[in-house]
Amino acid sequence: MPPIKKYLLTPGPTEVPPEVLLEIAKPVIHHRTPEFSAELDRARQALKPLFGTREEVLILNSSGTGAMEAAVCNLLAPGEEAIFVNGGKFGERWGKILNAYGIVAHEIKVEWGHPVEPEMVEQFLARYPRSQAVFVQASETSTTAVHPVETIAEITRRRDVLLVVDGITSVGVFEQKMDEWGVDALVTGSQKALMLPPGLGFIALSERAWRKAAQISTPKFYFDLKRELKAQRDEHTTAYTPAVSLIRGLNKSLELIHRETLPAVFGRHRLMAEAVRAGARALGLELLAARAPAPGVTGILAPQGIDGTKVVRMMRDEMGVSVQGGQDHMKGKLIRIGHMGYVSPFEMLVAISALEIVLSRLGYRFPSGVGVAAVQNVLARSASI
Amino acid sequence: MPPIKKYLLTPGPTEVPPEVLLEIAKPVIHHRTPEFSAELDRARQALKPLFGTREEVLILNSSGTGAMEAAVCNLLAPGEEAIFVNGGKFGERWGKILNAYGIVAHEIKVEWGHPVEPEMVEQFLARYPRSQAVFVQASETSTTAVHPVETIAEITRRRDVLLVVDGITSVGVFEQKMDEWGVDALVTGSQKALMLPPGLGFIALSERAWRKAAQISTPKFYFDLKRELKAQRDEHTTAYTPAVSLIRGLNKSLELIHRETLPAVFGRHRLMAEAVRAGARALGLELLAARAPAPGVTGILAPQGIDGTKVVRMMRDEMGVSVQGGQDHMKGKLIRIGHMGYVSPFEMLVAISALEIVLSRLGYRFPSGVGVAAVQNVLARSASI
Repeated sequence: MPPIKKYLLTPGPTEVPPEVLLEIAKPVIHHRTPEFSAELDRARQALKPLFGTREEVLILNSSGTGAMEAAVCNLLAPGEEAIFVNGGKFGERWGKILNAYGIVAHEIKVEWGHPVEPEMVEQFLARYPRSQAVFVQASETSTTAVHPVETIAEITRRRDVLLVVDGITSVGVFEQKMDEWGVDALVTGSQKALMLPPGLGFIALSERAWRKAAQISTPKFYFDLKRELKAQRDEHTTAYTPAVSLIRGLNKSLELIHRETLPAVFGRHRLMAEAVRAGARALGLELLAARAPAPGVTGILAPQGIDGTKVVRMMRDEMGVSVQGGQDHMKGKLIRIGHMGYVSPFEMLVAISALEIVLSRLGYRFPSGVGVAAVQNVLARSASI
Repeated sequence: MPPIKKYLLTPGPTEVPPEVLLEIAKPVIHHRTPEFSAELDRARQALKPLFGTREEVLILNSSGTGAMEAAVCNLLAPGEEAIFVNGGKFGERWGKILNAYGIVAHEIKVEWGHPVEPEMVEQFLARYPRSQAVFVQASETSTTAVHPVETIAEITRRRDVLLVVDGITSVGVFEQKMDEWGVDALVTGSQKALMLPPGLGFIALSERAWRKAAQISTPKFYFDLKRELKAQRDEHTTAYTPAVSLIRGLNKSLELIHRETLPAVFGRHRLMAEAVRAGARALGLELLAARAPAPGVTGILAPQGIDGTKVVRMMRDEMGVSVQGGQDHMKGKLIRIGHMGYVSPFEMLVAISALEIVLSRLGYRFPSGVGVAAVQNVLARSASI
């Protein structure tokens, strides 16, 4: 029998606060009413600080991938050139979407777990001067590494090239300064730091990106952002039927986020990252993304001779602690622990405890308790607990 | 102050049963787990009888419009020709999507409230013999008329042309025999007869449609149905993050539907349609779609000199009874009452009662109570109450 209480410590979906679940469970309202318009306006307004923008944030009825596609098909035309950073599954996805739309896509291949070197972006822009945009992840969820978006933005701004950022595990996780840095498109989804079930995508465009979008006639309908901007900004509704319940839940979760305050949320994410990493290191384990680890998810390499897939399965099925394994060539080699959204720093004890028990059962040797003690030391030193 | 108890009698979104709301409010599970795979498989299986198909029903994280777009961009290539029936807002939408994708779209314009004449389809196919597909609504929600899909399917099948049907207010509302009739694509959304909040789109394709889809390379990513089929049928998961909570709610609502049994659900919809129409006629009011009224929604023409928009607003704001007005040139002239999904036949009394009170206050004269008495007569005669 699985345990009665479960922990969802994957890098998304993340746990949803009971207050938000109850809001989502409220009777549905019609979406062409002043009541819904007020909900939509409120949510769009409250999202802006998470994006670090004064531009319009649009809410889409799709997953984050839909919002990624919206960025591509609204900003580029078939035959145009673009550069994308492929440092993991989601970087690879930029490439797939660009290819699907007939964009000539130049790939900066980055070793999994590493951040892209800004010089590489510089070099690619010099080598492919017709490139109209650079696509990158702020945080590559598959490898748990962050890319240096702020530095890349300096380069793209200087060359008047658009910078499109997948912020799916960065918006609401750590500070995003879209306007200040000069990011031209920032995308996210509902099931990460926004503490909601999956089902909503989000996108904000810079003024420069809107100007480019005005010239693009790539075939699209559902993801036509110009139509969506008109609906959401001017008509206070969505172009097509919105996921009303999730948007009401969104208002509740944004209320919780702003009540905690964004700096406190970001601080909590940093603290959890530090704690879980200290736990892993104390167990003699290595991180995949040691150089530039993401604040929202930590990737721990499975010890030599131990199957990471089995670790993840035992943690979930025997202990009710859901974490995630590696993908593609990291399958069986990586254990990813998510720590964003509705997660308490104390749950890092839970994650490392379950990991200790499973590793020990699988024959990996270490002094029992060193992992959780290391977590505890970080928590105890923190001023915010 | 608005009344404590509200009635959502619009043609979508419709009310969601409390059991379903509670299911949606359950803690989120991860979508790459055996637990979610079981949920997905169960839902896809239970949907088939509503579509009248043995083909795969795919679940999309989008509104119904997204599923409509998926039909277009998976079945046609730019420059190909197609015919679409425009008998209202949603027929018009087929045209807009086809245009967005560079399809040469031949429009059969049908007066609002009327069904398309099958001979017109025949004529258009003769006039534009290169047409690859016909697009139509089974039930045109904006005008409350049904189109004769079965008869049209005979024509398209004979000519080996695809028939693509928007079933957003027909799937689960009245019987759909996709396979038997020879419909090649059938699309729906979650917020109508499926008794769910908005947020899911659905599509099933015939074997013939899948063969056509195999040859089509129109740019798309999120709505790539071949990719989605592989994920849902072979890998028991979705290509991109699914709206997990809504899919669990879907299983609960499908359970309720199959427990009531489909024939009983369809009978209830017919009974409600008959009852509300009897009420309207007793009040001396006319229906927009008298010749072929939809089983899920009834469009009542506002009496001469009375503003339909005001009627709808008073019903909603003063009485808590949400119905919907007309769109475009029918704005102010139409009152649409939805009766599909989680609606009791007794609520037709509520709808007509509120309508009687509002009309009377606005100066329309009739013997008080004749509307609800007519509803009552229909209900009392019914064997299913």
